[in-house]
Amino acid sequence: MVEHIAIIGCGAAGATAAMQARKFDRNVQITLYNSEKYSQYSRCGLPYTISGKVKAFDDLVLMPAENWESLNIYAKLGITVTDIDHSNHELSFGGVGGEGKQEYDALIFATGAKNADPPITGLEKKRVYGLRTLDDAKALAEEAKKSKNAVIIGGGLVGMEAAEAFHERGLHVTVVEFLPHVLLAMVDPDMAQIIEDHCTEHGLTILNNTAAQEIKGKDTPTGVIVKSRESGEISEIPADFVVVATGVRPVTELAEKIGVEIGPTRGIKTDDRMMTNLQDVYAVGDCAENFEYITKTPFTGGLGTIAVRQARVAGINAAGGDAKFPGIVGAKVTKIFDLEIASTGLTEDLAQRFNVPIVKGSIKGSTKPPYYVGGKDLKLKTFFNKETGKLVGGQLVGLEDAAMRLNVLTLGIQQDINAVELFDFENCYAPAVCDTWDPLVQSADAARKRLKL
Amino acid sequence: MVEHIAIIGCGAAGATAAMQARKFDRNVQITLYNSEKYSQYSRCGLPYTISGKVKAFDDLVLMPAENWESLNIYAKLGITVTDIDHSNHELSFGGVGGEGKQEYDALIFATGAKNADPPITGLEKKRVYGLRTLDDAKALAEEAKKSKNAVIIGGGLVGMEAAEAFHERGLHVTVVEFLPHVLLAMVDPDMAQIIEDHCTEHGLTILNNTAAQEIKGKDTPTGVIVKSRESGEISEIPADFVVVATGVRPVTELAEKIGVEIGPTRGIKTDDRMMTNLQDVYAVGDCAENFEYITKTPFTGGLGTIAVRQARVAGINAAGGDAKFPGIVGAKVTKIFDLEIASTGLTEDLAQRFNVPIVKGSIKGSTKPPYYVGGKDLKLKTFFNKETGKLVGGQLVGLEDAAMRLNVLTLGIQQDINAVELFDFENCYAPAVCDTWDPLVQSADAARKRLKL
Repeated sequence: MVEHIAIIGCGAAGATAAMQARKFDRNVQITLYNSEKYSQYSRCGLPYTISGKVKAFDDLVLMPAENWESLNIYAKLGITVTDIDHSNHELSFGGVGGEGKQEYDALIFATGAKNADPPITGLEKKRVYGLRTLDDAKALAEEAKKSKNAVIIGGGLVGMEAAEAFHERGLHVTVVEFLPHVLLAMVDPDMAQIIEDHCTEHGLTILNNTAAQEIKGKDTPTGVIVKSRESGEISEIPADFVVVATGVRPVTELAEKIGVEIGPTRGIKTDDRMMTNLQDVYAVGDCAENFEYITKTPFTGGLGTIAVRQARVAGINAAGGDAKFPGIVGAKVTKIFDLEIASTGLTEDLAQRFNVPIVKGSIKGSTKPPYYVGGKDLKLKTFFNKETGKLVGGQLVGLEDAAMRLNVLTLGIQQDINAVELFDFENCYAPAVCDTWDPLVQSADAARKRLKL
Repeated sequence: MVEHIAIIGCGAAGATAAMQARKFDRNVQITLYNSEKYSQYSRCGLPYTISGKVKAFDDLVLMPAENWESLNIYAKLGITVTDIDHSNHELSFGGVGGEGKQEYDALIFATGAKNADPPITGLEKKRVYGLRTLDDAKALAEEAKKSKNAVIIGGGLVGMEAAEAFHERGLHVTVVEFLPHVLLAMVDPDMAQIIEDHCTEHGLTILNNTAAQEIKGKDTPTGVIVKSRESGEISEIPADFVVVATGVRPVTELAEKIGVEIGPTRGIKTDDRMMTNLQDVYAVGDCAENFEYITKTPFTGGLGTIAVRQARVAGINAAGGDAKFPGIVGAKVTKIFDLEIASTGLTEDLAQRFNVPIVKGSIKGSTKPPYYVGGKDLKLKTFFNKETGKLVGGQLVGLEDAAMRLNVLTLGIQQDINAVELFDFENCYAPAVCDTWDPLVQSADAARKRLKL
């Protein structure tokens, strides 16, 4: 019987696991450990504290520290779990309030991920930042006040959202992306091109296919030396400060130490109950590896939606319940300079890596009927398994209603629909809202014909 | 073998049937008859020609008359089918170009619906209109230029959209609704109340539970006599013109004449191939009765989305193919004074009428996370079958992202999902777009708990 659940990490994953365990069992003892001094806050909201779309840092705190007590949950904030003796089910911790030991019956790793620093000279300088913690955001909000030139290394979601934020604060912003396009973990190159054009029109400088080599300057940056991977040309971009957003890797050291298995994605391997190879030891969120929904390939989410859903499952199970996590579809979305960018399931690249032969339905449509003023262009792709006709992914880019349309595709993937079923989808229609055959349905029609379904 | 397909009606249904028949068979002879002189135009777009959101009447014409020839389709516009001798597979027509007869092998009724005039004295006066044809809209656009007071009798979709349009043109507009609330064919009373409050704040006068009795005035209206159904009080509302939008009924006279069966909804009975009881005779769109998706109850769509989907099926089948129509979910949407109003599947009222016991998930949520500025209130309900847990309907009202969210529910109904599957839905999330647990998922969670699933 579980009397004490210990949870390491108080991000979206750890905090949700604690709350769900408490909902399931009123009496089980629950302790949350967090190295950061803050209680649960929205990590995804950090870029918006720079632009002001989130008004105050405190607004991001979703679970004020003092509220844990009312749930009878011990939240040890600013306290790090330093060691685990799993044979005795006991962990050691240290931090502001001194050191100590604590027994547990069930253990949940919600240790998140940390920045994976790229091979660039000068990363140790002052005014070189990641954007992963509330303290990072606070420092960067100060930079926005006093700087002219920002260089963002890495054009993934965090990098692009940060770039937009600094641009909105009036800075000149350059994004340095190693790969041929930004956001390639999310969208295909043709969609990335639309996004880049849009961002460039709005004033961002984007250097694709470019390696950042060195951060110049004595103590603080004066510029970033970059090398074009095509031409080999080397140049220096002026920078008052630098944000490094080249991706993250799961934090697994403690887990590895007690014999928890790590998977091919470098995340902690979990089953459909979010349990690791060790009984009553769970992992959730960015530190955890689970399965891609369609192919059942080992997969790490790296998304808040996945973190809270996994955490709910682990929290219930740790408290003695039996919940299941259905796998990761990987629905992703952002909005940059009002452009909605949305992707779900497999990209072309992922489909190839996972050996899924695909047929595409590509549409350049409009969000509204042609006769109604104000419709916006919508670029849309859906992917179907060439052999089974099943929906395996989709991407949308447009100035409105791209993200919400994506949701239809995600539910479709979860329900295992094929191109005919998406074609038969009865979208809602009104002149002020959408045309009679939604672009989603049009894309399914194109694919259905190609699939001869 | 079908050599000649005759289609009666050139609205969305008739035109789509013609085009789909042509796509399926390059050689079959196709003739379209339309009593109106116009080729296919968007009927749903008519109110927006009054407000100017559709700039020109011609913009509504989706298939210019001259384009039919290039598809090798004979479009007889302004020509009415006057009689049918089905034993000889021959129809008679008359109109601007004279009279004639035409043989057919397959016949498609796309005769639409017509206004069902309510028992009101004075409907025959000038400046009393329906809003169903392009000529109606042209006349009403002129009224908008010269009038001060408009009275709309009937607060359904057409009535409310017309009311908004005239209000935007600066008129004082009163909506007279016989039932306790507007839009009750679409939403439940509590949702209708939100809509009414919103419209009233924007300047509409809405009189619910009120019977229009008489249109006063000599040749043209000066006012409308109305009687409160609660208090019995009688009053007169000033009116320069009147729009009657109290609903429609299927046009079935010709079909009845040749022995086509009419269903309990007064529409032409059709099967899943959109065929009537007579071989090779089809009916599609507003004149046709088919089946409600969930309960298989006889149902009439009255929606453009349904019309084109049914027409596609009938067009293919008439040309010798074999397509199936999956039934009518009835996804409906509109936007009035920027408020998106969306409904799918069964309302509470329909569920009761169709003997479906329901459990509700009601949520007052927000379109964005609480920490991000600019999120809008979203009122949302989902309905699940109390016995099976299956999703049977949903309604959303909000200033953004209500309509597109509805699409998720419609696909869910079509995929027969239950409350747990909607709860497991992996919505996309980003601070600028939506929270980690979408309000849809929250409503499923509330219902799931009530269902003990």
